[in-house]
Amino acid sequence: MHESLDLSQQECETLLRSGVVGRLALSTPDGPHVIPINYSVVDDAIIVRTSPYSLLGTYGRDSTLAFEIDQFDHEYHRGWSVVARGRAEFVTDPAELEHIRAVWQPHPWAAGARGMHLRLAWDELTGRRLGAAGNPVAELRIRRAL
Amino acid sequence: MHESLDLSQQECETLLRSGVVGRLALSTPDGPHVIPINYSVVDDAIIVRTSPYSLLGTYGRDSTLAFEIDQFDHEYHRGWSVVARGRAEFVTDPAELEHIRAVWQPHPWAAGARGMHLRLAWDELTGRRLGAAGNPVAELRIRRAL
Repeated sequence: MHESLDLSQQECETLLRSGVVGRLALSTPDGPHVIPINYSVVDDAIIVRTSPYSLLGTYGRDSTLAFEIDQFDHEYHRGWSVVARGRAEFVTDPAELEHIRAVWQPHPWAAGARGMHLRLAWDELTGRRLGAAGNPVAELRIRRAL
Repeated sequence: MHESLDLSQQECETLLRSGVVGRLALSTPDGPHVIPINYSVVDDAIIVRTSPYSLLGTYGRDSTLAFEIDQFDHEYHRGWSVVARGRAEFVTDPAELEHIRAVWQPHPWAAGARGMHLRLAWDELTGRRLGAAGNPVAELRIRRAL
């Protein structure tokens, strides 16, 4: 049995800024939901796109969300995860939307209208390494050009 | 831009029964949390282990949870996800615990006391294929011996 170790804030942030897909958890009157979604970190916030008619468009606004990324290596029984939590809000300011588009024109993998940008500026960022020793940042399978 | 297509109930269940790690979303007074966790499907329920002092041990009992598994192929911009939702409860019946241990002796990757078994018998099971065409069941990277 291996240790579970906390990642440093710097490691968490590097991993978060390197990712392209994660999972967003939100609370609804019907209980929690978890939604896999393309994302990017723009400045100091996670940005995702959604439609106003989606669950996320309906319940994700002005509420606390949890966003998770991870990578698991089943062969070696190890992996890491990073969770960012904070209050999310829709981006409505035209200058900010222009900046987001300039930094990251989002390319969702699935078709559909996703005209709304949701911004999650995290105030909690935690990460853990699970299982056998490894260096999460060095072993990233995919990495944004930073 | 590719289509997003629903998976059949049979595909969702096959994928769910084949996995070893997923993410559990729960609502707490502090907002939603998402927890990566080892799991197994025993009969018709997702079983995870936790400690009574964890977030999951505190807020996961007798409440609705959402459990997600996925696999993303970044190179080809495609993937799939399956979400199971339902009410979770702790397993306390000795005969049922014995059955769970016989079918799946859980091997969490991280050290720590996880003496409690939480059972999530889903009443919602949905799945989606994202991006380019592919066969999620045929392309499983890891598969339990069924």
